[in-house]
Parts: sequence; structure tokens; C-alpha cells
Amino acid sequence: MKELKRNIYLCMKTLDEAERIWGDRVSCLRTRLERVPTAQALHRVTGEPLTARRSVPHYHGAAMDGYAVKARATYGAGDVRPMILKVGENAFPVDTGDPLPGDTDAVIMIEHVQPVKQDEIEIRAAAFPWQHVRKVGEDIVAGELILPLNHLLRPVDLGALLAAGVLEVPVYAKPKVWIQPTGTELVAAEEAAESAPGQIVEFNGVVLSGLVRECGGEPLLQPIIDDRYPVLRERMEAALASEADVVLFNAGSSAGTEDYTAAILGEVGEVLVHGVTMMPGKPTLLGLARGKPVVGIPGYPVSALLAFEQFVRPLLFSLQGVSAPAFPETEAILGRKLPSRLGLEEFVRVILGRVAGKLVAMPLQRGAGVITSLTRADGILRIPQELEGMEVAAPTKVRLLRSREQLDRTLIMIGSHDNTLDVLANELKKRDSRVHLSSSTVGSLGGLLAVRQGHCHLAGSHLLDTVTGEYNFSHIERYLKGTPVRLVRLAARTQGFLLKPGNPKGIRGVRDLVRPDVTFLNRQAGSGTRILLDYLLQKEDLASQGIVGYDQEEFTHMAVAVNVLSGRADTGMAIFAAARALDLDFVPVTEEQYDLVIPESEWEDPKIRMLLDIVVSGPFRRTVAAMGGYDTARSGELVGRWDGREWLLRERT
Amino acid sequence: MKELKRNIYLCMKTLDEAERIWGDRVSCLRTRLERVPTAQALHRVTGEPLTARRSVPHYHGAAMDGYAVKARATYGAGDVRPMILKVGENAFPVDTGDPLPGDTDAVIMIEHVQPVKQDEIEIRAAAFPWQHVRKVGEDIVAGELILPLNHLLRPVDLGALLAAGVLEVPVYAKPKVWIQPTGTELVAAEEAAESAPGQIVEFNGVVLSGLVRECGGEPLLQPIIDDRYPVLRERMEAALASEADVVLFNAGSSAGTEDYTAAILGEVGEVLVHGVTMMPGKPTLLGLARGKPVVGIPGYPVSALLAFEQFVRPLLFSLQGVSAPAFPETEAILGRKLPSRLGLEEFVRVILGRVAGKLVAMPLQRGAGVITSLTRADGILRIPQELEGMEVAAPTKVRLLRSREQLDRTLIMIGSHDNTLDVLANELKKRDSRVHLSSSTVGSLGGLLAVRQGHCHLAGSHLLDTVTGEYNFSHIERYLKGTPVRLVRLAARTQGFLLKPGNPKGIRGVRDLVRPDVTFLNRQAGSGTRILLDYLLQKEDLASQGIVGYDQEEFTHMAVAVNVLSGRADTGMAIFAAARALDLDFVPVTEEQYDLVIPESEWEDPKIRMLLDIVVSGPFRRTVAAMGGYDTARSGELVGRWDGREWLLRERT
Repeated sequence: MKELKRNIYLCMKTLDEAERIWGDRVSCLRTRLERVPTAQALHRVTGEPLTARRSVPHYHGAAMDGYAVKARATYGAGDVRPMILKVGENAFPVDTGDPLPGDTDAVIMIEHVQPVKQDEIEIRAAAFPWQHVRKVGEDIVAGELILPLNHLLRPVDLGALLAAGVLEVPVYAKPKVWIQPTGTELVAAEEAAESAPGQIVEFNGVVLSGLVRECGGEPLLQPIIDDRYPVLRERMEAALASEADVVLFNAGSSAGTEDYTAAILGEVGEVLVHGVTMMPGKPTLLGLARGKPVVGIPGYPVSALLAFEQFVRPLLFSLQGVSAPAFPETEAILGRKLPSRLGLEEFVRVILGRVAGKLVAMPLQRGAGVITSLTRADGILRIPQELEGMEVAAPTKVRLLRSREQLDRTLIMIGSHDNTLDVLANELKKRDSRVHLSSSTVGSLGGLLAVRQGHCHLAGSHLLDTVTGEYNFSHIERYLKGTPVRLVRLAARTQGFLLKPGNPKGIRGVRDLVRPDVTFLNRQAGSGTRILLDYLLQKEDLASQGIVGYDQEEFTHMAVAVNVLSGRADTGMAIFAAARALDLDFVPVTEEQYDLVIPESEWEDPKIRMLLDIVVSGPFRRTVAAMGGYDTARSGELVGRWDGREWLLRERT
Repeated sequence: MKELKRNIYLCMKTLDEAERIWGDRVSCLRTRLERVPTAQALHRVTGEPLTARRSVPHYHGAAMDGYAVKARATYGAGDVRPMILKVGENAFPVDTGDPLPGDTDAVIMIEHVQPVKQDEIEIRAAAFPWQHVRKVGEDIVAGELILPLNHLLRPVDLGALLAAGVLEVPVYAKPKVWIQPTGTELVAAEEAAESAPGQIVEFNGVVLSGLVRECGGEPLLQPIIDDRYPVLRERMEAALASEADVVLFNAGSSAGTEDYTAAILGEVGEVLVHGVTMMPGKPTLLGLARGKPVVGIPGYPVSALLAFEQFVRPLLFSLQGVSAPAFPETEAILGRKLPSRLGLEEFVRVILGRVAGKLVAMPLQRGAGVITSLTRADGILRIPQELEGMEVAAPTKVRLLRSREQLDRTLIMIGSHDNTLDVLANELKKRDSRVHLSSSTVGSLGGLLAVRQGHCHLAGSHLLDTVTGEYNFSHIERYLKGTPVRLVRLAARTQGFLLKPGNPKGIRGVRDLVRPDVTFLNRQAGSGTRILLDYLLQKEDLASQGIVGYDQEEFTHMAVAVNVLSGRADTGMAIFAAARALDLDFVPVTEEQYDLVIPESEWEDPKIRMLLDIVVSGPFRRTVAAMGGYDTARSGELVGRWDGREWLLRERT
């Protein structure tokens, strides 16, 4: 039986305190110096000032193609009194870079010379001494400082060093970083194709290796080990005895592991910080053992990244004598209220887009285990520990994960989830790799509200009017008073019930949901699918209280599908494409209209133009049709135009 | 005898035209796709959309340490009615990440459980279904899009892919770039330790290789070849037949070479652009041969960099399906008037520093051959072809070569040149690697003017008052009316005449300068050394017209020294340290005071504090003393305080 302990943080610190304590102890450390050939020193940092071994140029040379002359000999030449020079006698042909022959001290450009005979030229202006001559030391003088110490070497720096005869440079050794994945439950990615429940694919090691490389370090990624004390202890000893400059233990996802690592660090060295009031990233461990910085990196991927960036990144740069470059930041306004716990520095992943001139930040999922909250994010917003959260439209600083130009090319789509959005995102990338579709799935109603607040370029919506049977029109009338929009058909799609393959519970329709042996999985309130379900229940006069799992909500069609597949529920309502993607059975219920709601103010945006162009294109329609359950016959049609008070155009179904 | 031809540009284009022509023809090209293991795909670009092979998590797992239970079985538990659960029967200990055992569907956190007996626990609140459970597909659902195509892979992306079971990724092959140095005059850096006049060290190849790497490409650096037609033609054929995706011919510094390359390109393919109205960078050649982009890169190092950045950099990114990241830019004001030729897009290297809140750009040397104008530069300013130059204090955009934070930590020093400034720069780096001393040597008087205009943090000055024999005081009174400054002694230093070793011309002092057999090398007007010389001539009643080379000016002590060494002049006036650095003989003339002039407004700047702290420190004094010819006894002393109208403090000598 497992031993259970409370996860006790002995030296819990605020983020600021932890950074100060860590900096005080490790920022003075440097890696040893090593000499590398200059041609291979790109992006290394100089460990000594570098002075020129030779002058550049090291001789007086022609700076132009032409004739080298002695300037004094040309005095008196002019337009009225041209002068003839004898080639090989008092005028010598030179190309750029050639040394000046004999006692010549000037070059006359070829353009200013008239050939007279085979060996005679005519000039019509005197040369002044040293004209068009690259003089010795014009660029670099021997003994001069070329680069100071602690300088990150760029391509041009290597050129200057080679020119100055510096063929080898003393640079800080790349910090070697021991990366130790720990966790009995971990399996290597290559072995995990069919991994069993309880097995977690180890991927933090690769992420940390990449981050180490980006800081100029060299990762020493170790094989996975069990998180048992003797094993951990032995590997810690091995790490400290190794050539590694920094030791990272990645705790797996078990709190037990972290406890061991902290205990072992206490035995072999000194624990400086155990636990930081940041989220994600709380279980961070910082210490020193035998002169080496040791960091316990939390197991959840978002926590791991944040712990690395706060504590390991600055260390890897300072080990090389430079400071870590600041992360690019931008000002944005918050697109949704964000609660947060007082006393906790929270890092929230957001998508960012410029809507009507304002940069809007929409929070993504906050779970520390959700790695896609990082891959999908455009930025990271920090809620200081003094705040209990932030209000909607609050101005805030956001650290950028994409470039500023990319943000200006990001289309923010908020609203209902649909599998065709992936197709749209890809087709946009194909047309213009710089255009990026960031979508936040908050349900159809959430999309309309985001349009009203001016927080998105477009919304996806399939809101059924239970009276008219029409989609979206009446909801726009109700929620978008004063906000002109256009409504474009994306696709018609089939909604129905997802079922385990073979339909073991024999579910045929909505009436089966109230059977006590049937577990249901719902979509969140405000989603079009939820509205559809409630309408169906009402039509059949069924009470939602009678449905097991009615209060269990998921946010996307695919989440419903995967949970039906996994057995969490017997059925749930979703689009056919979701059933097909996971080979589930499907009972169709209705065909519904999924529309794009585009604010009038964004209608002429070139990104919207491109998107609408894609929606009517062959490749988009074919790909979507192949997903199953979609009708794209009317994709791209303008079905409504709302001026904020009335419909200027409105299709009648 | 050399054949001389005019360098004719057949297809000369403006920069904009050239970029458009080039983009139209090459931006559609892509490298082939290759599959690489995900763990090795850092910074590569996806060539296809990547979808998840598996869900993450792929099982329902505990999100907390605690006990897995069936939620329904806990209903009714509360503070007044605690419930006992049997461990192993209806409560199962789980660590974070463990799969939920049996038909459990919730986890109760270990903190909310009271152990009762060995196998019994007490709870005081009911669990709700799926609390503290990481549900199947919560992060990623099988079939879902993980990353679109044309996406640059970051460390977290690799993690998400591995988690989703994507072990290999199709990415664009790294563009291979053939780099061909050409030029009969070129020698490899390793062989150039004692190279003869006329030999130029080849270093562009290493610079271009580094630039290619920074664009995600793979350089194929070739050995140097002669710039004779048959050799060039043969290597062009070899390059086109090779695996290279892009061919760069680096023209050496001879215009003849470029002509051959253009001619050969016309024979084997198509010349699109030959000559661009940019400076530096005019002799750029753009073309296509057998489907491969071919670029003739000019020979001068600054030209080579600019041609690469304008034409090769965007190509290397687009070959990989992404756009080149924009260069960081900033607004600055120009610290000096900049003339420029109409019709020529000019790129000027500048140093940048924040002085009194304004970011000031001071132009550096403009020669295309001066590689240190790049290594020393903080930014590059572009003068559009429509302008005939820019006025002092004109606002301008500057492309940054250092980060914004670095600029805020740059000390701008303008004025007289002294060898101790290198020592200062290094000592600053040692104290704080982020602090950077950028100096522009324009002479003592230029320094005072920069102080008056608020364009520097400090100036270096050694201006002799020929009446009083004092340094700097009277010039400050004259030029800094209304500008309060403090005057701090940097060092006293010995000025004198530099002589070739052994003093072959027997020069003993200033009277020898008027000898017809003696060639002199002067410093520029406005420099302290020039003022000193003119004072000495006047005292001895000697006419400057009688001095051969009086009109030949250099800008630094070291430039004078190296030109005396090279034989360009028999003597020149400079400080002893310059003579010592190059083993020249020296006739001392006088000891002078070199002072730092620090505007009152900058006096409390922490960088100035640090600099003054260094000036009084042992290491600085010792290093400077070891250079010879310096007296550092009073280094760091405040010798004057000027309030803009009168001296509040003034040493009397």
C-alpha cells in the first residue's frame, strides 16, 4: 500500500523572495573558460577582453579601382591643363584592395581617367594625398580592444576577430545541465504508443532540453528513473559527481517524489527554497550542493516551464557572464474577468489579437497539466500576488510568446467549437504563413457577448430559436442591439448522440437519456448544443433532473466524444464529425446551421477577407465534407446583415 | 598587366524594386520535407498540420494526492455527519497521476481526510463526481490539431507532440547555402598571421555562415578560389550541381570579380538585379540558375552583411515556410547632421544611448570596409533615397543591434580619444555585464558640444588653455554657458612625438617638423592634441605651412601610431601609451590633464556612479599605470564644478 504524506513545503517563499535568495547565491557563479576556434564561437560569450593582434588593413591599399599615383606629381593638373601620366612609371593600375605600389600615396578612380595610348593616361584633376586609399589601421589598430569581456559573439564579431588575427577566443563553457526525469509512472515517448492507464509519457525532458539549448546550455538528458529514495539518492550523487554545472530533477507528477528530492538535497547540500507562492509552479525546489545549483522542477508541464524560466534561465545566462534577455512584453486589455487567489502570483496563458485597434487578451485553460494551454497561447499574463484577480477590460502587461507582427496577423475567434476550425486554421497558414487563427471555445452565447464587447474578429454560433426553428437570428437581435454584424454560413452539420461502438445500451434517442442505467455527459450552459438538448427535452416533456450526468459538463464536441469512448458516460450530444473521428456510433437528431458572426467593423479586414475566401474554396469544402456530417453547399453565403437595430438582409428558411 | 574595366551594372535597381523583383521570383520556393524525430525538431518548421495520435490524458487519473472514491457513495457526508470509508473497499489511496481504480469517479484530497484506523478514514464533506480528476482528453483529444503547418517548433511544442504520440515530424529541410569566397588576394585567417601587403584575410565566409545559421540554414563554406573566369565558372557549375538550395558568391573586394560572377550567372541562368541603389551594398547581384537562387554578395564586410539581410535572410526563412522575424526597431533623435546622396538608400551605423530621457543616435564611421563600425554599433539607421541627409536632432527610426534593456544601460561617451577608455569599458563589464560603454571619438571640442546638446552622458577632454596653461576650465566657460557640469580627473598623460624604432630621421622636437625630409601626420581640428601642437608651433614661431603632412589628419592616437609604424609618416603627436602599444620610439613633450566632463543632470545616474567608482579603484589604476605614460595619482578627483555661469569649485594648478 502506498505511503501517503502531506506535501510540506519547509521553506515556502514568495516569488520575489525566492528570486532574491536564489540570485544572491548563484548569480556570482561562472562556468570555466575554454578556448575555441573563432570560426566556431558563434553565440558564445567572451571570457576575456579581446585585443587586435594585427592592424586592419595591415597595408596601405587601394579603396577604388584605378591608378595609384604620387599625389604631389599630379599637382597642377586641371580641366584647362590636363596631365599625361605614364602607366608603369608614374601611374600604376590597381584594383580595390591592391597595395599601393612604390611610393604612391593616392588612387585616381578609373572613371576619372582618359586612356590616351597603350601606356598613357590623361587626368584632368590633381589627386590629393591618400585619396581613395584604405590606410593602415583605418579599421582596427593592433593592440586595440575589439570586444570587451562578457560579450555575446554575433556573426560580425567573429569577422572582426578573424580580421584582427584573433583565431581563438576564450569563452565561458556552455553550462551543462543534468536533466533527471523521475517517476515510476513515466514511460519514454517511444515506448508509449500503447501505454496503459497510469503510465504518463515523459516529455518534460525534451522540453527542458530545448529550453536549456535556447539559453546557450548543453542538456544532459538522463533516462527515466523510479521515484524511490535509494534510486533518487544514487542519481543525485551521480549528478553532483558529473561534469554537469547545474542539476535539474524533474519530479514527475507525484508529490511524493518532490518530498524525496527535497530531503535528499537537504542531506547532500542545502535547501534554499522549497515551495514558491506562484501558480503554476508552486512545488519548485531551489538549493545548492557541492557548489552546484540544484533545482527541483515541478512535474506538470506548465509548472515545469514557469519554474525553469523564473530560476534556471537567468542562471544559465549568468553562468556565461551575461544577463538573460528580457521577454518581449506588450500592453493588452483583458477580455474576460479573471479571479485569482490573494498571495499567489498567477501566470495565465492567453490568446491575443488586435480587435478594432485594441490588443485583447483572452484567458485560456488554467490547469498546470494542460500543455496545449502553452502551445496555443499567444502570451502569458501575470496576476500579482497582491491582487484577487482582474476585471474585464483591465489594462495589463502580457509577455509575448509570438512576435508583435504575428499578433497583428492573428484572427481571434471566440464562441462555439467546431472541428472545421482546425481546417480553417490550416488553410489560412497555407495562404499566408503569418496569419494565425486563435480560437477560444466558450460556447455560442459567449461568442456573441465577445462580439458585443469588441473582443474578437469573429464568433462561431449555432443558437437555435426554439420557437421559429431558425438559427442565430433571434439571438443576434436580442444580444447585439447596437452592434452591426454580418452572418455568414460556415456549414450545416448533423448533431446527435454519440454512443460506444455497437451501442451496448441500445440508446435510440432523447427518451433514453432518462433511463437510470444510462449515464449522460452534457455541454456547458450557453453552448448551442446545450440549448438544442434542452429544447429536445422540453419538446418531449422530459425533466433534466431525471438524467444521470446532466450536471457533468464538457466544453467541446471532442471532449464529449473521448469521454464516451473512455466509458465516463454512455452518451452525450455532439456533431457527427466528433463521432467519426473516434469511431463512435451515432444517432442523428437534427441538422443545424453553424454560422460566422462578423462585426461590421471587421468586415473589410484583409484577414477576414482571406478567411471568407477560404470558406468558399474547393479545398476547404472537400476537406470538411470528408470529415463527415457536414453540408458545405452554402458555405460562405451571406445569410444576414444586421445594422444593430434591424436586418438589412435576412434569409428566410 | 591588369585589365581595367568600368564596373557596369546592367540591371541597377532601387532597393524597393530589387526586393519586389526578388520576392516575386523566390518567395514561392520551399525546401523539401524531411521527417525528423520530434525530440530533435527544435526550431524547425512544420511542413504539414500535425494531429494528435492519442488523447492526453489517455485515462481518468487523479489530479491530487488523496483517496479515489465513488462520489455517490459519499453523498450525505458533512460536518455534523462525518462518514467513515474503508480503505481498499470504497476508498483507494492515489497519488497525482494514478489511474482511478475500479468504478471510482472522484478524488478526495489527502488534506481533507482524517485517518481513523489503519484501514479507515473519515470525511466531512461529500465528493462531487469527477472532482480532482484529470479526465481523458482534458488536454488533447486524439485526432485534434496540435499544430498547424508552417509553425516554428518551440520547446513546448515538442512536448505537446510527444504527449500526443507524434514521435516524428515532417519539417522543411534546413536550406543549404553554398558560400563561395572568391578573390586572388584572399588568404584564410589561419594562414594570415604574417600575411603580406595585398593579402586580405577572408572572414566574410565565417560571418555569412553565422548569419545563415541564425536563419535556420546550413552553411556550406567553400575554400577560397581565385577570381579568374574559368575557376569561377567551374565553381558555379559545381554549386548548381550540388545539394545547395542557395548559392552565394562573395566577390572579394575586386570589382573585376563581380563582373565575372554576373557574366557567368547570365550564361548559366538569369540575372534579375545587378546593382542596387543602396550604400553600402551597391554591387549586389541577384539571379536564378537551374531553379536555385544565386546571390553575388559584395566584398566589403558591411556591404556583405546588408546585402545578406536584405535579400538572403528573407529567402532562407521563406524557404522554410515562415517569414523572417522583423528586426527590433526604436525611435531615436540624431546627434549629428548626416549628409547623404539623393537616390541612394543609405545605412548608417550608430551608437545609441538614453541621455536625459531621449534616445540619441550618434553616427559611426561610414566606410563599407570598416567592420568595427558594425561590432561597435548599437543600431543601424536608414536614410531613405528621397532624402539628401538628415538634420541634427531629427527624429528617426533605428534598427537595434542590442536589446532595448542594453540601451538603457549604455553609457554614451563622446569626445577625445584615450587608450584608458578600453580599460574603463572592460571594468564596467566586469562589474555589471549589462553596462556598456559606447564611445565616439570626435575630439575634445566635439565632446563639449555634445554635452551642451545633451547628446552624451559624459565627454572626455584635454583642452589646453594656451594662455594659462590650464586644461579644460576656460573652454568649459566658453562653450558650456548655461550647462552645469562637473569635471573629474581621469588621468594625467604624457604627449609627445611618435617615431619609428631607432628614430632614423633623428627627430628631437617640434622644430624638426618643418624639415623638408620629415613627413608629419596630424590630428583633426578640434582635438586637444591638435590644439597642443598648434600651441607648440606658435610658441616656437613655426609656420604650419612649412610642415609636410600638416593637412593629413587622423582621429585617434592609435591611428597616428600605426601610420608612423607603416611609414606613411615619419612622426605624429600622440600619447606615450600609443607609442608603447606598437613599440615606437617617443619624444615626450608635455604632461596634460585628461578629464571627464559630466553633465550635472547625469551626475546621479547609477552608471556614472559605477564608472566613477571604477576610476578610483585599484584595478583600474594599476592597469592604466601598466600601459605607460599615465599618472593616475589623482584619478577620480573632482577638480571642478560649473553651474553654467560660474565655478562653484575649481582647482587651481
